[in-house]
Amino acid sequence: MPNPDFSTAHTKAHTLDSTDLLRHVAEQFVLPEGIIYLDGNSLGCMPKSAMADITQTAQQEWANDLITSWNKAGWFDMPTDYGDILAPLIGADAGEVVISDTTSLNIYKALYAGLSLRPERHVIVAEASSFPTDLYMVEGVLASRSGLEMRLEEDGNILELIDANTAVVLLNHVDYRTGQICDVVSITEHAHKMGAVVIWDLCHSAGNMPIDLNKHNVDLAVGCTYKYLNGGPGSPAFNFAAKRHLADIQQPLSGWWGHAKPFAFDTGYSADAGIRKFLCGTQPILSFRAMKAGLDVFTPLSVTAIRAKSMSLTGFFIELVERHCPQLSVFSPRDSAQRGSQVSMNFEGAYAVIQALIERGVIGDFRMPDVMRFGFSPLYNSHADVANAVEIIADILHSGIWRNERFQTRGAVT
Amino acid sequence: MPNPDFSTAHTKAHTLDSTDLLRHVAEQFVLPEGIIYLDGNSLGCMPKSAMADITQTAQQEWANDLITSWNKAGWFDMPTDYGDILAPLIGADAGEVVISDTTSLNIYKALYAGLSLRPERHVIVAEASSFPTDLYMVEGVLASRSGLEMRLEEDGNILELIDANTAVVLLNHVDYRTGQICDVVSITEHAHKMGAVVIWDLCHSAGNMPIDLNKHNVDLAVGCTYKYLNGGPGSPAFNFAAKRHLADIQQPLSGWWGHAKPFAFDTGYSADAGIRKFLCGTQPILSFRAMKAGLDVFTPLSVTAIRAKSMSLTGFFIELVERHCPQLSVFSPRDSAQRGSQVSMNFEGAYAVIQALIERGVIGDFRMPDVMRFGFSPLYNSHADVANAVEIIADILHSGIWRNERFQTRGAVT
Repeated sequence: MPNPDFSTAHTKAHTLDSTDLLRHVAEQFVLPEGIIYLDGNSLGCMPKSAMADITQTAQQEWANDLITSWNKAGWFDMPTDYGDILAPLIGADAGEVVISDTTSLNIYKALYAGLSLRPERHVIVAEASSFPTDLYMVEGVLASRSGLEMRLEEDGNILELIDANTAVVLLNHVDYRTGQICDVVSITEHAHKMGAVVIWDLCHSAGNMPIDLNKHNVDLAVGCTYKYLNGGPGSPAFNFAAKRHLADIQQPLSGWWGHAKPFAFDTGYSADAGIRKFLCGTQPILSFRAMKAGLDVFTPLSVTAIRAKSMSLTGFFIELVERHCPQLSVFSPRDSAQRGSQVSMNFEGAYAVIQALIERGVIGDFRMPDVMRFGFSPLYNSHADVANAVEIIADILHSGIWRNERFQTRGAVT
Repeated sequence: MPNPDFSTAHTKAHTLDSTDLLRHVAEQFVLPEGIIYLDGNSLGCMPKSAMADITQTAQQEWANDLITSWNKAGWFDMPTDYGDILAPLIGADAGEVVISDTTSLNIYKALYAGLSLRPERHVIVAEASSFPTDLYMVEGVLASRSGLEMRLEEDGNILELIDANTAVVLLNHVDYRTGQICDVVSITEHAHKMGAVVIWDLCHSAGNMPIDLNKHNVDLAVGCTYKYLNGGPGSPAFNFAAKRHLADIQQPLSGWWGHAKPFAFDTGYSADAGIRKFLCGTQPILSFRAMKAGLDVFTPLSVTAIRAKSMSLTGFFIELVERHCPQLSVFSPRDSAQRGSQVSMNFEGAYAVIQALIERGVIGDFRMPDVMRFGFSPLYNSHADVANAVEIIADILHSGIWRNERFQTRGAVT
């Protein structure tokens, strides 16, 4: 039975969707029936073309053409070819982006790359609120190389930590918990003034907002492709390095795919002169091909339009939550210019509410200790999704059904 | 027109195939029509079941079930679950094998793992004839950590290089160029006597011969799954670590998938107590699922029968080459007990012969400077393949067609 309180919301959603420039993009995705998927910040939906691409790669390129596909199907050059497709989405030029491995591994490479550009310095600056694996990789670098030090920003004042000893600053462009956008321009400028190199982790921004790495003189960046880029579960991650640094960069995950002449089978390592020096071993081709389908969706789209829709979706969500669910405490920025493509809220029963929502077909996610997180993909989410989701959230809260025992038991992975 | 010289060869092939215990296994693979594929040591053929598995993972698990598949479809536990399936093929126990990332990256982890077990030592011993990426990764470790030294064996006497300073010995179980089997038992024993830790690279042996890691007290091992294990292009690689070492091992690629509590989102890294400590970032699920189809083929098979057939195929190949192609100089071991599942030969026109063979549907590979390399998969190659291949090689050599200009031009990747 429709909730009369929501009739205004649905009318407004209809208006917003009817003028949405990207409203037809959703047709390019498989969207499971009866589901409102607000978790694209964790795993993006599957582009319809992915299945044909994967089938082609498995049945024709692997099964039939076998080893000849390394050349004929372009397998060997996928990391740089696909990197060039991704480059415009982050304001990079061709030859500055390579796709491979995982975000965590690429952070390790980027940290060492940054250190190789500042060999006389010994401090790595990062944020305590960082996505944890970024910090774990800093720990890994500190464990492998003696004489380094990590300085962790805990009070919101990152600039004060960057000084003449700082080699590398590692920061998240969008905070995975709060959705807060970090100021790339001022921090990069300040870090450069202090002589440090900056690495931006774009996991939660790539694909949902304009990013101008070269315009803002960014040195290094990393990011994943399985969130807003819809590359598929565990699809490979990327490294960006500004062309001006490429010749000087060194990184120790120096496998044969990063060698200047990988098929010469030389005994000694000699790094490729370009962005391939971030490569290490043989890449998972099936996962690459699925990811390409995700990147292809972006090619004809305007990133400005994507960002406008993202702000509209999250703004509308906050507006409806504040009107209909006063129990929830939104802690993502109210100012849409400060907010990524997600909205996070505190609630004592966050875990149970997320479980109850799943039962009703609304997928968001829970983060410790009491955070409900909803991600909005400008490519396949609509304002109708927002209105419907909030109506269901309100119903779950007002009915008290989330207190039911079946929503309290926690699984191993959440 | 059949070559009458080969009638004996074909008769013998027929006899050998008719008593082959594994002759029906080939039916489980997609074998391209008109192709004799002798390059399974580079990229194994596709198991027929792989396509259904990939489709299920893409269409059901990704597209439909989305984020819930991390639990429901077991995505998060694939590295260890599939590692447990692989374990018996290499003489390991459950909980000692984890699949992830690439061989090169896993060598880096294994080298640091070995160093963490021998913190007071500073020498890594390896072979100059190693698959090159193994050495590149040693270089990477030396570049990241000061005070270490690599000793490279160049004269065939590895034992002399292992002394009281040796922390880690990194060796290839089967030489990728010659097919020579390295003596796991005596080298591991000697290394242990000297107090060193041994890493065996199983890339060219896993799936074609019995390997008894635990029986021989091996410490660490790595290997790939896309050669004889038929896991698909760039399918993920594995790490083995003996249970007795697991508690003490540390490695610096310490991403969130190796954390004891990955979903607690702690700021500090705390390694999983078990084999998961070799994991780093989020794994490529589509490539994992294809690989599982490759592993599944092995489950009902006897590794002893696989090894017997491998020796029979390579022995028969050498016998026919020596009889019909005296121009070729076989340099793989004549003693089948010393030989892996490949045969390598020198010939001045090796590159052109390989190209001419491809045109005739026989796929082997070329390695610098003048090596022709043929790999034999006991799972899908037959003795008929061997006889047919040698007949075509003989024809190409005797007709002199390989001297034709079109076979001389070298592509970028060979």
